[in-house]
Amino acid sequence: MDLSQFPPLNTPTRILLGPGPSTADPRILRAMATPLLGHLDPAFLQLMDRIQDLLRFTFETQNPFTLAVPGTGMAAMETAVANLVEPGDTVLVCSSGFFSLRIAEIARRNGGQVSVLQRPWGEVFTAEEVQAALEQTPAQIVGIVQAETSTGVLQPLDEIARVVHAQGGLLIADAVTSLGGVPVRVDAVGIDACYSCSQKCLGCPPGASPITFSPRAVEKINARSAPPPDWYLDAALLSRYWGSERAYHHTAPITMMYALYEGLRIAAEEGLEARFARHRQNAALLYGGLEALGLSLFVPAAIRLPSLTTVRIPAGVDDLTVRKRLLSEYNIEIGGGLGDLKGKIWRVGLMGFSSRPEYVVMLLGALQKLI
Amino acid sequence: MDLSQFPPLNTPTRILLGPGPSTADPRILRAMATPLLGHLDPAFLQLMDRIQDLLRFTFETQNPFTLAVPGTGMAAMETAVANLVEPGDTVLVCSSGFFSLRIAEIARRNGGQVSVLQRPWGEVFTAEEVQAALEQTPAQIVGIVQAETSTGVLQPLDEIARVVHAQGGLLIADAVTSLGGVPVRVDAVGIDACYSCSQKCLGCPPGASPITFSPRAVEKINARSAPPPDWYLDAALLSRYWGSERAYHHTAPITMMYALYEGLRIAAEEGLEARFARHRQNAALLYGGLEALGLSLFVPAAIRLPSLTTVRIPAGVDDLTVRKRLLSEYNIEIGGGLGDLKGKIWRVGLMGFSSRPEYVVMLLGALQKLI
Repeated sequence: MDLSQFPPLNTPTRILLGPGPSTADPRILRAMATPLLGHLDPAFLQLMDRIQDLLRFTFETQNPFTLAVPGTGMAAMETAVANLVEPGDTVLVCSSGFFSLRIAEIARRNGGQVSVLQRPWGEVFTAEEVQAALEQTPAQIVGIVQAETSTGVLQPLDEIARVVHAQGGLLIADAVTSLGGVPVRVDAVGIDACYSCSQKCLGCPPGASPITFSPRAVEKINARSAPPPDWYLDAALLSRYWGSERAYHHTAPITMMYALYEGLRIAAEEGLEARFARHRQNAALLYGGLEALGLSLFVPAAIRLPSLTTVRIPAGVDDLTVRKRLLSEYNIEIGGGLGDLKGKIWRVGLMGFSSRPEYVVMLLGALQKLI
Repeated sequence: MDLSQFPPLNTPTRILLGPGPSTADPRILRAMATPLLGHLDPAFLQLMDRIQDLLRFTFETQNPFTLAVPGTGMAAMETAVANLVEPGDTVLVCSSGFFSLRIAEIARRNGGQVSVLQRPWGEVFTAEEVQAALEQTPAQIVGIVQAETSTGVLQPLDEIARVVHAQGGLLIADAVTSLGGVPVRVDAVGIDACYSCSQKCLGCPPGASPITFSPRAVEKINARSAPPPDWYLDAALLSRYWGSERAYHHTAPITMMYALYEGLRIAAEEGLEARFARHRQNAALLYGGLEALGLSLFVPAAIRLPSLTTVRIPAGVDDLTVRKRLLSEYNIEIGGGLGDLKGKIWRVGLMGFSSRPEYVVMLLGALQKLI
């Protein structure tokens, strides 16, 4: 074994302004140096209770079933979809971006009869469209992305939730890029399964992912004729560990729970409204700066997601060259486009700790040199 | 929001001598304070390559498919079982402890036709028994636990692997409580799917879990007629991210990868043989001390797992009282029994950083006061 090939960790210090992870709050990194507790230690169980309370505060929900899944954001998406969708269930996925395709894929893998309501990437759905789609092909479950990380669109959900409920359906909403930075308001909107991640607007490293199910969603899960194929993300088993029974299911990612607790505390200290306002203000600063550089934003102002801005790459500018130079010369990470938007847009995340005016002017200054 | 309910993290400092997590090496906790990289940052991709090399060293394998699953140990078990078992596949599970039951459960959830070769908890299987079972009910996949965390038994695998291969089968072996502390020798033994965790003999926090598949196992996965229901733990998708394609699948748990890298470096610096010897020596110190206290060990010496010792609770001593006092008065965590062994045995883990003579004498001193 040639140990010289494995030097001590000595990574460059990046400013993370891509689609996630965002730069972790230094307070959170310090909290993660806390020595481990066992996953059934009374002190850890108390921490889990507090995390649940803080998650309910952040999701703005009273749902008893509110916890953190032991994986990254895609694990939370799978927890929502795989537990709600039984073989033969009808599912409507509203798709106008990359992540809705994944909801559809996971629903299919779990035996769902999936129909897709399609719109071009970067657009939003109206409640009327969803209603018409449901009247044509009824669905027990409707999946939609509130904060589409691939396009930078914020999908309004209030009216759609009413339509879905009027048809007796359950609404799954992806809040991976919104929770903690953009209002999610689970109970006010009426979302039945809502999930997110730790590494975006909550400013933590990735590895523990918030999820909440409404009582109606829990009823559907409890009425399943068989458990889901997925054991690690089985909602019933997760809830027996997070609930009063404390039944051993998995070893919790202890350090990630420390991180999540500190991230949620920071959000509660700042206050949700102040936090949403900060995300909007720094996004506005970015919009103005990008336009002053002669760039055009991909999404109309009315449906822009404050946490993630998409901007068209100007003609004659090479996507990869600019992103590589941003990273190597300025240590700034931004994201490229996914799917058909590859090479056409950049994605700039201003999330959690990364939503800071100093980072906005830093990025604008670097872009000015590079394009 | 009453913030006073959510004070800064102020946890007791425990000595973790239970079935896991073990006490994290302070070097690893420090490495985790490193600022985040993006999951597609060239510096992070280089780290992933190095982690793969170190995992191959630790598993003692040349398997190209060797990586860390973005979840805790049970996620790695599910990755092994859910990817190898297709609906209708025949599976034999050798069961003499708690964790083999989980292999069987996950295989069933994935449509496997599962037969169980049963032995009382705390015993091992002979190759002849496995051969006889396979002759009676052939199986494409055989699942067995090398290091049974519920009983403290080390299951010899060399002969069993030969028998399984002679019948054309694939061998899944659970090394959750052995990797990095007890020889696993994936290639020499001929294990086709072997998985572990970060939080036991590797001395890291839980949250990223090693797995390796042999080329024959990868062939079986590639020949699946449909992908597994489990999307997050789909081996094909995981390998496209860890391989040269670097296709985005999930956001890696960055900080956990820092931890795993540091933990694997520490293991490589110490050397595997020296590490195994340390685990054996500290276990022997514990055996002697427990016997000197008049306690009797649950597992015969020949099949004892050095990383996890099980000891009978003496008549008249209350399990929970002793464990609670150990925790509250001495900050020492040990484990209780699972299943039928509840109240009958204690489980003492000496794993990774926790395998230290000072911890052994500390525990013995405390037990002397309490029993």
